[in-house]
Amino acid sequence: MENTAKEEKEMERRTDLAVEERELLGEDVKGVDYCEEEIEGLPIERLRIMTPRAGQLLKKPVGTYITAQLPPLTDSIRDTDRRVRALSQEIRRLLPVNGLVLVAGLGNIEITPDALGPKAASKVLATRHIPGEIARSTGLDRLRAVAVVNTGVTGQTGIETGELLQGIIKNIRPSAVIAVDALASRRLERLGCTVQISDTGIAPGAGVGNRRVRIDADTMGVPVIAIGVPTVVDALTLAYDLLEISDEKEGLALSDTVAPQGRSMVVTPKEVDLLIDRAAHLISLSVNMALQTELDTEDLLNLL
Amino acid sequence: MENTAKEEKEMERRTDLAVEERELLGEDVKGVDYCEEEIEGLPIERLRIMTPRAGQLLKKPVGTYITAQLPPLTDSIRDTDRRVRALSQEIRRLLPVNGLVLVAGLGNIEITPDALGPKAASKVLATRHIPGEIARSTGLDRLRAVAVVNTGVTGQTGIETGELLQGIIKNIRPSAVIAVDALASRRLERLGCTVQISDTGIAPGAGVGNRRVRIDADTMGVPVIAIGVPTVVDALTLAYDLLEISDEKEGLALSDTVAPQGRSMVVTPKEVDLLIDRAAHLISLSVNMALQTELDTEDLLNLL
Amino acid sequence: MENTAKEEKEMERRTDLAVEERELLGEDVKGVDYCEEEIEGLPIERLRIMTPRAGQLLKKPVGTYITAQLPPLTDSIRDTDRRVRALSQEIRRLLPVNGLVLVAGLGNIEITPDALGPKAASKVLATRHIPGEIARSTGLDRLRAVAVVNTGVTGQTGIETGELLQGIIKNIRPSAVIAVDALASRRLERLGCTVQISDTGIAPGAGVGNRRVRIDADTMGVPVIAIGVPTVVDALTLAYDLLEISDEKEGLALSDTVAPQGRSMVVTPKEVDLLIDRAAHLISLSVNMALQTELDTEDLLNLL
Amino acid sequence: MENTAKEEKEMERRTDLAVEERELLGEDVKGVDYCEEEIEGLPIERLRIMTPRAGQLLKKPVGTYITAQLPPLTDSIRDTDRRVRALSQEIRRLLPVNGLVLVAGLGNIEITPDALGPKAASKVLATRHIPGEIARSTGLDRLRAVAVVNTGVTGQTGIETGELLQGIIKNIRPSAVIAVDALASRRLERLGCTVQISDTGIAPGAGVGNRRVRIDADTMGVPVIAIGVPTVVDALTLAYDLLEISDEKEGLALSDTVAPQGRSMVVTPKEVDLLIDRAAHLISLSVNMALQTELDTEDLLNLL
Repeated sequence: MENTAKEEKEMERRTDLAVEERELLGEDVKGVDYCEEEIEGLPIERLRIMTPRAGQLLKKPVGTYITAQLPPLTDSIRDTDRRVRALSQEIRRLLPVNGLVLVAGLGNIEITPDALGPKAASKVLATRHIPGEIARSTGLDRLRAVAVVNTGVTGQTGIETGELLQGIIKNIRPSAVIAVDALASRRLERLGCTVQISDTGIAPGAGVGNRRVRIDADTMGVPVIAIGVPTVVDALTLAYDLLEISDEKEGLALSDTVAPQGRSMVVTPKEVDLLIDRAAHLISLSVNMALQTELDTEDLLNLL
Repeated sequence: MENTAKEEKEMERRTDLAVEERELLGEDVKGVDYCEEEIEGLPIERLRIMTPRAGQLLKKPVGTYITAQLPPLTDSIRDTDRRVRALSQEIRRLLPVNGLVLVAGLGNIEITPDALGPKAASKVLATRHIPGEIARSTGLDRLRAVAVVNTGVTGQTGIETGELLQGIIKNIRPSAVIAVDALASRRLERLGCTVQISDTGIAPGAGVGNRRVRIDADTMGVPVIAIGVPTVVDALTLAYDLLEISDEKEGLALSDTVAPQGRSMVVTPKEVDLLIDRAAHLISLSVNMALQTELDTEDLLNLL
Repeated sequence: MENTAKEEKEMERRTDLAVEERELLGEDVKGVDYCEEEIEGLPIERLRIMTPRAGQLLKKPVGTYITAQLPPLTDSIRDTDRRVRALSQEIRRLLPVNGLVLVAGLGNIEITPDALGPKAASKVLATRHIPGEIARSTGLDRLRAVAVVNTGVTGQTGIETGELLQGIIKNIRPSAVIAVDALASRRLERLGCTVQISDTGIAPGAGVGNRRVRIDADTMGVPVIAIGVPTVVDALTLAYDLLEISDEKEGLALSDTVAPQGRSMVVTPKEVDLLIDRAAHLISLSVNMALQTELDTEDLLNLL
Repeated sequence: MENTAKEEKEMERRTDLAVEERELLGEDVKGVDYCEEEIEGLPIERLRIMTPRAGQLLKKPVGTYITAQLPPLTDSIRDTDRRVRALSQEIRRLLPVNGLVLVAGLGNIEITPDALGPKAASKVLATRHIPGEIARSTGLDRLRAVAVVNTGVTGQTGIETGELLQGIIKNIRPSAVIAVDALASRRLERLGCTVQISDTGIAPGAGVGNRRVRIDADTMGVPVIAIGVPTVVDALTLAYDLLEISDEKEGLALSDTVAPQGRSMVVTPKEVDLLIDRAAHLISLSVNMALQTELDTEDLLNLL
């Protein structure tokens, strides 16, 4: 009983963002390193889970979590924006200096709030197949080898995302994987506007589907950099947070009749199409810049 | 001051469904006729606003509101489902017996929760242009004349939806308009699953955009049957309803910092793509059956 | 008999481009003014049909036809390209200096080679609905009033495109219409790469559907500037032109069995999606620049 | 020189259909078994290449080629059509009786004439992930294990289709692969209306892109059933066939100026969107019926 209640509360407060888990714990957690800074106008939070105990508390693996806050949707962000450049530097820092990189778009292209991964990945420049001699003759010999896949979702493929990637990785042997996926957040205002970059991999479907086998260095055999943007929020989490209900008041509030349905409902803003398109565009730009260090934005746009 | 607070509360409790306004007023409203019945397995509420005073209370024009509850998304509904047939009979009853009907899809095809109107209208069989002799030779002379337009949204066209329809109506002179649009509801579980049919017309963008000039018999010069399905819910309305907060408790709950943003945010379920597709499919089937009384489902599917 | 054979040959040689009709006639046609020039790197042909007799020969109304040749698809064209600027100046020259302009996208968004009109129009900035005070406060008071509609196709709406536009024009009273549509050409290599701008209006569906009532100054009551890009070619026309069969040889070549089907088939290049996307992008840019003379490309991209 | 001319002629006469290669050779080819029959109203050609020599002549591997002719697009085909059932029986006959089957959609979803594979595969029911106990409790224990992937194209992934499939096959160990792809034909009237089913695998991109490593039993280690529908035709092949030019006349006809471009152009009918949608629908139905032998059409539509 006690356990179930606890579980329930966890589910209600569900988030894929390390910085939100920290907030929920009261911000000062032992074994967690945290600082904020602003780079090129982009507010960045750096969070490091240093001990397994802290990892248990934050329900996240030991590792680095970089969280950047984008301007709201109404602001226009240019392709060449220095904030995009800042994001690309954060990604680059987590990547091996050389070698093939596999970029994997996770999620379901047909479910708008879950389409971030495939939409972002489809705009990442694949170069692995361009033969050396052609690359040299066209001046593209400075390109880093990149492969790109959209994994689809298990419900449509019958294959776990991790299983699918393992097969591909065995065959093409990348030095690292970048996995892009939609996440869940506690706060409506974060949706489409927060980017979390981490070196701890990803649990596919964590944000929008069911939790499954992790995709990380342990399971894939190579470093997995995860890039995620929250696109959904649990309806009950939203309700508690909008009304700032503290733990003591919770008991009295929750309706018996509405809750069973509301509890499992996950919502997304009406503007989800725009949020997904902007976030996918920014992530693909940042990943391209992180991977192709000798090309400028103009070169990249010409190649894509 | 008093007024502003009142307005705010109204906005929080915002809904386009007459039956929800009635619920909010305590269900027993003078000048409102209400009954429930089940037709072909379809739960139907019939609400009639009979006096202007009752209309003010329910914030809806005097007229008839028929509300049907569809099964949840997980249930499959067949094309030939008797529930669809029941829906078509409700629509037919509000239409003139003869004459051209103009079906108008309202909303923005590019914003998923607002795409109901265009998606439904695009599957309605247009027949007005089929010349008599061809219709006769192909056995289609039993077809009622139907014209179909997607109005787009003012932000993209620069033209008010009502203005656009007025121009078209003047030229093609229909005997009635059927306007299909996405609505707002108070309850998450209604989204995609409730259909409201009324003879009072529609305020375009009421559900998903801003309230504008009504499209009704007064402004269009012919009867306007509105068919709507709620696809979005105001975030704060959702929070209050999920937590069943009564009026007395409201004051204490609302956070100053979160509210300004949450107040204006409108959300939709993660499964919005599926909800819209199913609802658009059901409405187009029902409208086709209501208009083409001498054709059966099979005929219609062959013609489309 | 004689007539039918003549008609047939005309159909075979079918084109919506005035410059191709001129070519077919041996280039030197009385009553036709023709010159070529290059503006900002863009090869431009200026053709003027000056007499009804010349119009009959070229099967086009008396008026001005400007034809520009874009680089092949493999070349990248930048948004700010001076060639786009040249195109916008040609359009502007045909427009009245002041007053509301209605931009109409003709064609079927669901049939890729016919989607040029709706795709181009949907990226044209609509401004007619922005109230004066807001425009002034946001510095947008320099915007010319623009309305934008997608007419759909008669098969889906039951309404002739011309009829639909007449209704809208009566209501919003523009000073001119710009109609964008897909055309048919004789030559595969022109598809997606030729732009014809004329002041003689358009016959909707000429390129891809059936010929219907013209949309021009006579039928609309205001000047109609037509902008078209060929996206399809008649299969038989293609065959003759690829093989450069002259009139004398025609008789012997055509197969009895294949012809009946091939004769009515219309084809488009495999890369039609890319051709349409590029052409729609270029036309929308050019139209926006032609209409909003005080904004630069950057302003426009920010507003869209 | 001689060789180049020969190659050129082959390219001109390019087709992926074994029955068309046979036609070109004069129909009576040694080592080729051929018969026609009609099953459930579906005209079917059975062609068997029995010797490597015959394979060289027909430019196809030794094996079985079943070619079915669908009615033209204007005819409606019902889901439960007996012709679809006939198609499914042809597919089933080439499959192993038991074991996991991997269905692979080949091609580029963003290029309409190349989207057949991904469109068809996305409607095939994936079942491999449904755990035994759930399957039993929901009555789905009669389902055959199926996995489904869309491979994308090398230009977007940087990975050869064959390479990608090899990695997946190693991990999930299917008993057979069904690969669906768009093909090239010699005849316009075949596009979208001919289905070729073979047990010899597929050369990805043969129809619409460049020829690459074959995907067959040799390279994949398991039987590969290929299902293809022609969606494009080479422009010059089309020209020759439309005009029924025999070999002797060829030399004189081909224009020097037009040919270089026309020669490499590949075309598709204007109605390509409809052709692809219908063909993808029919193939997915047939594959589902072939794989799930104990379910009827209604069950399948409910599960999808």
